[in-house]
Amino acid sequence: MNRSKDERIQRSEGRGSEGAGSAGAGAGAGAGAGADFLHLDVGDAPSGGRAGWLADRLRGALADGRLPVGSRLPAGRLLAADLGVSRGVVTEAYRRLTDDGLVEGRGRNGTVVVAVPAPETASGTRRARRPPTSPSSPLSPPPPPSFAAAPGPDVFDALRNAPARIDLSPGLPDLAAFPRAAWLRAERAVLSDLSAPDLGYGDPRGTPALRAAVARWLARHRGIRADPGEVLIVAGTAQALTLLARVLHADGVREIAMEDPGSLGARQHLAQGPLSTPPVPVDTEGVRVDALRAQGAPAVFLTPAHQFPTGVVLSGERRRLLGAWAREGGLIVEDDYDAEHRYDRPPVPALRSLLTDHVWYAGSASKLLAPALRVGWVLAPARYRDDLVAAKRFADLGNAALPQLVLARLMESGALERHVRAVRARHRRRRDAMVTAIRRELPGAVVHGAAAGLHVTVTFDRGGAGRGRQMDTELAAACLADGVKAHPLSWHRQRPGPPGLVLGYAARTPDEIAEGVSSIGGNLAR
Amino acid sequence: MNRSKDERIQRSEGRGSEGAGSAGAGAGAGAGAGADFLHLDVGDAPSGGRAGWLADRLRGALADGRLPVGSRLPAGRLLAADLGVSRGVVTEAYRRLTDDGLVEGRGRNGTVVVAVPAPETASGTRRARRPPTSPSSPLSPPPPPSFAAAPGPDVFDALRNAPARIDLSPGLPDLAAFPRAAWLRAERAVLSDLSAPDLGYGDPRGTPALRAAVARWLARHRGIRADPGEVLIVAGTAQALTLLARVLHADGVREIAMEDPGSLGARQHLAQGPLSTPPVPVDTEGVRVDALRAQGAPAVFLTPAHQFPTGVVLSGERRRLLGAWAREGGLIVEDDYDAEHRYDRPPVPALRSLLTDHVWYAGSASKLLAPALRVGWVLAPARYRDDLVAAKRFADLGNAALPQLVLARLMESGALERHVRAVRARHRRRRDAMVTAIRRELPGAVVHGAAAGLHVTVTFDRGGAGRGRQMDTELAAACLADGVKAHPLSWHRQRPGPPGLVLGYAARTPDEIAEGVSSIGGNLAR
Repeated sequence: MNRSKDERIQRSEGRGSEGAGSAGAGAGAGAGAGADFLHLDVGDAPSGGRAGWLADRLRGALADGRLPVGSRLPAGRLLAADLGVSRGVVTEAYRRLTDDGLVEGRGRNGTVVVAVPAPETASGTRRARRPPTSPSSPLSPPPPPSFAAAPGPDVFDALRNAPARIDLSPGLPDLAAFPRAAWLRAERAVLSDLSAPDLGYGDPRGTPALRAAVARWLARHRGIRADPGEVLIVAGTAQALTLLARVLHADGVREIAMEDPGSLGARQHLAQGPLSTPPVPVDTEGVRVDALRAQGAPAVFLTPAHQFPTGVVLSGERRRLLGAWAREGGLIVEDDYDAEHRYDRPPVPALRSLLTDHVWYAGSASKLLAPALRVGWVLAPARYRDDLVAAKRFADLGNAALPQLVLARLMESGALERHVRAVRARHRRRRDAMVTAIRRELPGAVVHGAAAGLHVTVTFDRGGAGRGRQMDTELAAACLADGVKAHPLSWHRQRPGPPGLVLGYAARTPDEIAEGVSSIGGNLAR
Repeated sequence: MNRSKDERIQRSEGRGSEGAGSAGAGAGAGAGAGADFLHLDVGDAPSGGRAGWLADRLRGALADGRLPVGSRLPAGRLLAADLGVSRGVVTEAYRRLTDDGLVEGRGRNGTVVVAVPAPETASGTRRARRPPTSPSSPLSPPPPPSFAAAPGPDVFDALRNAPARIDLSPGLPDLAAFPRAAWLRAERAVLSDLSAPDLGYGDPRGTPALRAAVARWLARHRGIRADPGEVLIVAGTAQALTLLARVLHADGVREIAMEDPGSLGARQHLAQGPLSTPPVPVDTEGVRVDALRAQGAPAVFLTPAHQFPTGVVLSGERRRLLGAWAREGGLIVEDDYDAEHRYDRPPVPALRSLLTDHVWYAGSASKLLAPALRVGWVLAPARYRDDLVAAKRFADLGNAALPQLVLARLMESGALERHVRAVRARHRRRRDAMVTAIRRELPGAVVHGAAAGLHVTVTFDRGGAGRGRQMDTELAAACLADGVKAHPLSWHRQRPGPPGLVLGYAARTPDEIAEGVSSIGGNLAR
């Protein structure tokens, strides 16, 4: 590790100190008249009985849960200074609680709460003791997903919270490969180089460093020419879609056509505009542009590089037809969610690279690194850019600065490129393992799409289009009961179609994949 | 530094690797048929002329800016594998560009772009060379704030971007004191302890660790009893207000009364509901509850601990009257933005601690640590909690995980408490310096409010209520021209009132404060 950088960081904590002579100012000087800690105000204490008063107040806080077991009391010296009492008062109060077996002195680790007083000893508390857990406690785990009903807005939360041995939900890269050491190194460098104003309120569009890094990344990897000034940093594609739906709605747009099958999550976010999301069918070449024209919506949501969930890559002919549709006034929202992950074919440049003024482009770090980063980027057609920035400003005043600066370093240093290259090889092996397992365990299942991305979609020849929804949701429910998570394909359909499952492989080992698919096969055979 | 933790982090990067035997899989194996890098597809190359073809493609990318000066070319070995060509092809292409003076080999640092070809040499490029900067370039700096017009939604961005020597804008803690070393230590521990699922999509309400830490912080410092399940983590108070305004609007609320003077920023965010924000006057005891009743709005936005901008602490009598109003059905939004910063009086518990079911409570790390963290927390009345979680889910699927986990560690370890205590002593000295400078440089100015928070508001006896707006915006404009930033008080007023300035001191040294106030005095005297 880089010692000189660490020293710089250490020094920075002392920065800005000034000795300017105002009365009574010393690092340890508290506010004098009372403590933030439990809002203790010594004015409430009877004269001569301060230690007893303090011990009673502390007992009350122990009894009503404000000081839970394991929490630490403030150092006696500091609490005495805050309260404006002698240190002996605090020492005596702490001693009484120690004698009661409620707290324990632990040397340098301070005084720690070890027990809660029985209700009858908690004299002087103003609040009643709370019942341990009420039936409607917000801490109770959320209910499991209902596969019987149409999926609601909390369906992904419910599935994620359901217990399972093997999670084959789509949408995750290999999270175990997250470059923790590289992230920490970059964070150290960022903290060392940061200026104080970087920690204040920032540009709602994002930090200049990340906007420049994203612009270069898009030029290098996605064929997109963009000025850093055009890049808006957002909290993932989810926020991108919610914001652009609002901007489009304010511009008079009321519907945006969706690929069908197509991402349920994207559909839910676009519906926040509020926009309606009429379905347009997808075939083996991608979205049906003739159907899009016939449908008549002014905008369409697409995943051209690797259609979600079918995995189809938009064909050259369809790109041409879409280009014509866009130049006649159609608006395209391009969700480029996993384009960097492809295993057997030349990459396809983003639609945005060809149709700059007609495409909203959304990308994110969720599939490149990890969804928990909540960082994405949007390129809007020029005429929408100011409205989009205003929407982002009101949403949250802009993304947090530190993670943006760390990600910018990983992009600029080549570390992200190396990471994507490394996980791509692993993802490819995992896809092979998934396809092999499907061939072995799910006879008659059809695997769709290109060798790319982080998931495969399979359909089954049984059930038929009419019973598709019931068949695949029942299958997914049975698999979950068996400890294996997967998305029923019908969650991502608006119109009836053959039953199927959407299966993520990138975050799972080949053994887990084999076991999970075997469990699906067992349930399918029943 | 903790070596064993570092080793754990290092090891984690190798985790999940498996040798499972799928064909041709090796860490360095690319996708075979083409490179993400510039979307090169060797199928486009003439047979026998691959090095020339590659050199031409690279020249094109150099010419049109996709490969800017300073960027690195991929390692020859990797690019050759991606393209499915021999390494000699790439070496030869790089040699030709080196001969042209466009790139330079730098040993272990790879091959770096050092120049851009003149337009005539850029044969084969499909895109025209861009003009360096167009007049409407999105990179051009934003215009300075207009003090003549009513402040718009971008007024704070404009002020922040304006150049100045001394920034006395309110709202910033001492950013130079940000605990960089403690943050980095906590980040290292978080990265070491993290499980892979922690990096996936998470609970939109926030990580359990931070929600528990915030609940304990609020119990210990703000007198609030809350179950961690009640805490929603948000992207700062700005997002809290935008989300709760939407939830209230969906519940039929159409207006929320605002303290006047009151925070312009809060007013702008609440207006997104959309909610109208009728003004209710503030006097030396805080908000006028009689006027609130007369106004008739069903909800009110308040800053009870330290009113923004006047600095008044809500009196006991007003708390009592507000309690009665709330129990009759009134809703309170409590923005507890800087309550932990107080210098000469006992702390006041949050209204939420007394009126749980009637108060939306919003707090944040912006004033405790730094606004750039974009982390805040909301406690909603129970009946609104589910709607608020749904709004957060659609906004961004939840805050980023890593900064939440780092902040939770700083809260639980006592590091945040120590930081607040340390900066409080410094802030107090800076407030003293500010008040001293005002007394000296701004004769006749009245300093308002308690010795608390991060700013002071001053009013001037000249100008009168009618001319207040013009007088203080002109003064702020003159100060900015002189290199000193401050908010005109009228920005934070809805109704006419005496002219004034809102002056932040916490982020500035006593010398800067003295110089800034002296400059204000010079402009005031003119």
